[in-house]
Amino acid sequence: MAEYDPSNIFAKILRGELPAHKVYEDDRALAFMDIMPRVEGHVLVIPKVPVRNLLDCPPEELGYVTGVVQNVARAAVAAMDADGFTIQQFNEDAGGQVVFHLHFHILPRKTGVPLRPHSNQMEKPEVLASNAQRIREALDA
Amino acid sequence: MAEYDPSNIFAKILRGELPAHKVYEDDRALAFMDIMPRVEGHVLVIPKVPVRNLLDCPPEELGYVTGVVQNVARAAVAAMDADGFTIQQFNEDAGGQVVFHLHFHILPRKTGVPLRPHSNQMEKPEVLASNAQRIREALDA
Repeated sequence: MAEYDPSNIFAKILRGELPAHKVYEDDRALAFMDIMPRVEGHVLVIPKVPVRNLLDCPPEELGYVTGVVQNVARAAVAAMDADGFTIQQFNEDAGGQVVFHLHFHILPRKTGVPLRPHSNQMEKPEVLASNAQRIREALDA
Repeated sequence: MAEYDPSNIFAKILRGELPAHKVYEDDRALAFMDIMPRVEGHVLVIPKVPVRNLLDCPPEELGYVTGVVQNVARAAVAAMDADGFTIQQFNEDAGGQVVFHLHFHILPRKTGVPLRPHSNQMEKPEVLASNAQRIREALDA
């Protein structure tokens, strides 16, 4: 598979060159709101190591980021009062990947509420900020 | 969320009460072919600890099983000559979960080949056996 390209938008977020509605950050991982959410409370979790996809990630970093996914998913479910959640993780074009820095989608789900179709529709910043705040509070609870 | 129910079909596979086309097994994890594959080479990876969903899994077991997902995904991509892959992981009814033992879907993907819709159509055992064999060989390579 291809090389890591540091001009991808998640690398820019990690470098502080682009803003994000962050919900969690430590020295190895970052969680932030997807700006084109397929459901209310859609969060992305990424490792800080510059890896393109799941296969490129050092196992110890993968294990670490998966623990962050677990913690953030628990908080997102609580914050959104969800009935369940779905994890999606896409690798390469054929696998559905659009941004080429390894990331995990956390999709809080409510009974009877389908995922919105993929779109290029950006969510309002105030909605993202509010959901990020609720998830941060649930993480701290 | 609800208690673990040991009568689920993956618990039965772990106990040897139901057969499976296994591709990998150790003392903490098992990987086997999905009998209703949404794509050629669709594999499931489960931890052996009796946990219902991602939130219930002890972090050290979650980290371990994620490493197995990485290894099996690499082998499945190679064996199926795939161009990418998708990971899906469903939690609770609302999140799309059908069998209530934590599991990760590995879906090898080829460019231009969509996922088949969800169905109750079982794959032919000889196809599952052949794909399992190819993935085992790729794991050993």
